[in-house]
Amino acid sequence: MRQRQGRAARSVSRRALLGGAGAGLAIGAVGAVAGERALAVRRPDGTPDLGTAAVPFHGPHQAGILQPPQACAHLAAFDLAPAAGRDGLRTLLRTWSATAARLAAGGAADGQENQIALDAGPCSLTVTFGFGHSLFDKAGLADRRPEALVPLPAFPGDALDPARSDGDLWVQIGADDALVAFHALRVLQKQAAGLAVPRWQMSGFARTPGATPHPMTGRNLMGQVDGTNNPKPTEADFGAKVFADGPAWLAGGSYAVVRRIRMLLDDWEGLPTDRQERVIGRRKADGAPLSGGADATERTPVDLAATHPDGTLAVAPDAHIRVAAPASNGGAAMLRRGFSYQDGLLADGSPDAGLLFVAFQADPARGFVPVQRRLARGDGLARFLRHEASGLYAVPPGAPEGGYVGQPLLEG
Amino acid sequence: MRQRQGRAARSVSRRALLGGAGAGLAIGAVGAVAGERALAVRRPDGTPDLGTAAVPFHGPHQAGILQPPQACAHLAAFDLAPAAGRDGLRTLLRTWSATAARLAAGGAADGQENQIALDAGPCSLTVTFGFGHSLFDKAGLADRRPEALVPLPAFPGDALDPARSDGDLWVQIGADDALVAFHALRVLQKQAAGLAVPRWQMSGFARTPGATPHPMTGRNLMGQVDGTNNPKPTEADFGAKVFADGPAWLAGGSYAVVRRIRMLLDDWEGLPTDRQERVIGRRKADGAPLSGGADATERTPVDLAATHPDGTLAVAPDAHIRVAAPASNGGAAMLRRGFSYQDGLLADGSPDAGLLFVAFQADPARGFVPVQRRLARGDGLARFLRHEASGLYAVPPGAPEGGYVGQPLLEG
Repeated sequence: MRQRQGRAARSVSRRALLGGAGAGLAIGAVGAVAGERALAVRRPDGTPDLGTAAVPFHGPHQAGILQPPQACAHLAAFDLAPAAGRDGLRTLLRTWSATAARLAAGGAADGQENQIALDAGPCSLTVTFGFGHSLFDKAGLADRRPEALVPLPAFPGDALDPARSDGDLWVQIGADDALVAFHALRVLQKQAAGLAVPRWQMSGFARTPGATPHPMTGRNLMGQVDGTNNPKPTEADFGAKVFADGPAWLAGGSYAVVRRIRMLLDDWEGLPTDRQERVIGRRKADGAPLSGGADATERTPVDLAATHPDGTLAVAPDAHIRVAAPASNGGAAMLRRGFSYQDGLLADGSPDAGLLFVAFQADPARGFVPVQRRLARGDGLARFLRHEASGLYAVPPGAPEGGYVGQPLLEG
Repeated sequence: MRQRQGRAARSVSRRALLGGAGAGLAIGAVGAVAGERALAVRRPDGTPDLGTAAVPFHGPHQAGILQPPQACAHLAAFDLAPAAGRDGLRTLLRTWSATAARLAAGGAADGQENQIALDAGPCSLTVTFGFGHSLFDKAGLADRRPEALVPLPAFPGDALDPARSDGDLWVQIGADDALVAFHALRVLQKQAAGLAVPRWQMSGFARTPGATPHPMTGRNLMGQVDGTNNPKPTEADFGAKVFADGPAWLAGGSYAVVRRIRMLLDDWEGLPTDRQERVIGRRKADGAPLSGGADATERTPVDLAATHPDGTLAVAPDAHIRVAAPASNGGAAMLRRGFSYQDGLLADGSPDAGLLFVAFQADPARGFVPVQRRLARGDGLARFLRHEASGLYAVPPGAPEGGYVGQPLLEG
C-alpha cells in the first residue's frame, strides 16, 4: 500500500472543491472561476461526507460539466413523442428541471411517496440535459437550431449503431452512490411517459471518492491516466473553449459529444507496458509524459519536440497525446468528462467494455471534429478502439432558481 | 438532509468492523465472532479510508461472505475446459487464489505489468469461489460431490434462462471502487484461458460507504430496506446456519444460492406506499415491522401474532416477512448478501433491473429451498418478481496462507 498524504492535504478533497484533478479538471477552485457553487456538510476534520456532498442544480452552467465524474453514471437519450410538440417539451423540461433540482439538494422527487434512495444524501448528484439536432424540427423550433448543431461527420473506422446513437433529448446523470443515480434515472424516465420515449441508455463509472490516496486524474480501463491535458478552469481561455457564446438561448451552454468507445482490451493487454506507453505517450504508472525524463510527473507539460539521444521523438509521431494535442489541431480543445463502462462479454468472449466518452466544448467544429479527424487517421491508439455509438447535443446554460433548462429557447 | 450522527458514532464504521448493519449483518464485530480479520488504515479521527480498507483473502472462511456487500460487484460463472480435468482445475484454483490474495492486499496481480487499477488500494476487494454440481463429473471428482449439492428444484413462477444459470465454477467479486472490481474480473478471466470458459457474467451494486449517514441495512431497487432479518454473527447458531459441517473438504465452507430476480418496478411503483408496506410487512422509510407500532425501528423484533384493534393481523398473512420468516419455515435461515442490478431497458420499455440475490447457508435444504417453496406460492411480493437465472454452488472454506481454495478437495 502506498504512502498516505497527511490530513491537511486530504482535507482539500476533490469532491469538496469540485475541481480537483479528479477528472483532469486540474487544481483550482472551479467555484470561484466558473460561477459554480458547492455545498458539502463537513465533518470536524474538514473532510466532506460523500452522502451529503451536493452540487446545486441552478447556476450559470448546468451541473455535470465542471464537476469531476462521479462514481456512477447513466447516460440516456429520449425521442419526443409525436404528439408532444413544443408544449410537451416545455412541460417535460419544467418537470425534469424541478425534479433534478430537488434531488440534487437531497430532497424527494415528488414527496416521500415511492422514494427509492431514502437514507442517503444527494451524493453529488448532477443531472445534465442536452438537445439533439432532431429535436428542433419535432418541437417546431427549426429556426432556432444553432448552426453548430449539425450531425457529426462520419470518421474512418466508425462502426456506429444508430439505435444507440443520437436522440432528441440527452440526459447525463452522475452520483457517487449507485442507488441515488438509479433513482434519478427511474424518476426522469417515468416523468417522460407520454412526452418522450426512451431511445438508448448506457451506464458507466469512475473512481469512488477515497479509492485513491490523493486527487488524481482518472484511469480508463486500459489502466492509463486519462484526461491530464483537459482545459483547466484556471486558464484564461477555459470559458471560450468550453462554453458557447451563441445563439442567445445557448450562451453559457455547451456542446456535448458522446461516443461509446469499446476498447479491444485483449489486444491492448497483450502489449508490454513499454509498448502501451509508446502508443499513449505517457508512463502508465503516473501519467508523466515520455518527453519529461525520469523526474516528470503527470503535471509536467508535454514537449512534443523533445528527442531521445538518437534523435527520435520522445513522444512518438503516432502517439495518442501528440495526435490529440491542441497544438496538433489548430488549438482545438474540449473538456472530456467520460465514464468507463463494462457490459459483460461479447459472443466471441471478449469484453464489451470501454469508455463512454463525453466531451464539452464551445463549438464541435473547433473541438471534437478536427481532433477526431486526425485521431481516426493517425492515432496509434485507434487500432485498439471501436467507436460504436455517437451523439451530439446542445447543452443549454444552467437555469436560475425558479427557471428550467431550455426556458430561453422555449419562451425566449 | 437528515440529522447527522456525531463523530464518535460515525467512527464505528460498517466497513471498519466488517460487520455493521450494512448487509443485515447487524451490529457486532464479525472479526471476533467468526474468525475473520480486517485490515484498514485509519485516519487520525478513526475512520478508515475507503481505498486502503482491506479484507484478507486467507482465513477460515472465504472473504465475501461475512463482509457487507461492497459498492460494486461482479458475479461470473465458468465452465471447465474439456481438456482441463482435475489437473487443470488445480492449476486454475491455485492461480486464482494467489491472485485474489495479492489483489486483496493491494498488490499487483502479477507484477506491475498491465495493472489496470493502479493508484487505489484494495477498496475492500473480496473474491469468493464456488463449485457447481457439474464441476465434479468433469474434474473426475464425482465421488466427492456433497450430497447437498443437488440442482435446485423448479419453483412455481420460475422463468430461468439456462445460459445465465448454473456453471462449473462461480466467482463473486466485490470492491468499493468499480475499477478495482473490474480489474480483478479481467485478471481472473484472462487467467482462465485454456482452463475454463466464461459462461455468464452479471454486475451489481450496493451502497457506497459514506452515502448514508449511519450504518443501516441496504435498500433494494424497490426502495425497501432488505436484509434486516439476516442471521447475526453474534447469535449462537450463526455458524450452524451459514457454514457447512461436511464433507470434510467443505467444513467451514457454505452453499451459495444465486438468483437473478428482476423486479417489475413499473407495477411496484404504481402501488401507494402503504400498499407497498403491507406487501412487505415493514415501513418503507425505516424498515420497522408493521407489528411494532409507531415507535418501532428496523431492529424491533417482528411479532407475527400482533393484531390490529379490529383483529386483523398487523403483518398480513401474505406479507413477505411473514412468509419468509424462519418461524414460518421450520427455522430455515440463510445469510443474504445480494446486490442490485440495472441493465437498461427491455424491449417493452420496462427496466431490466432488480436483485442479484446471493445467499449463504449451511445446507440449501434447510435454507433457500423451503423458504422459496413457500415464497413462490404465498408471498404477496412474488407477483412483482421474476426469477430469471439460478445457480447453486458449494463454497469451500477459506484457504490458509500458502494454500488455495479447494485444495482439500483436490489434494485431500
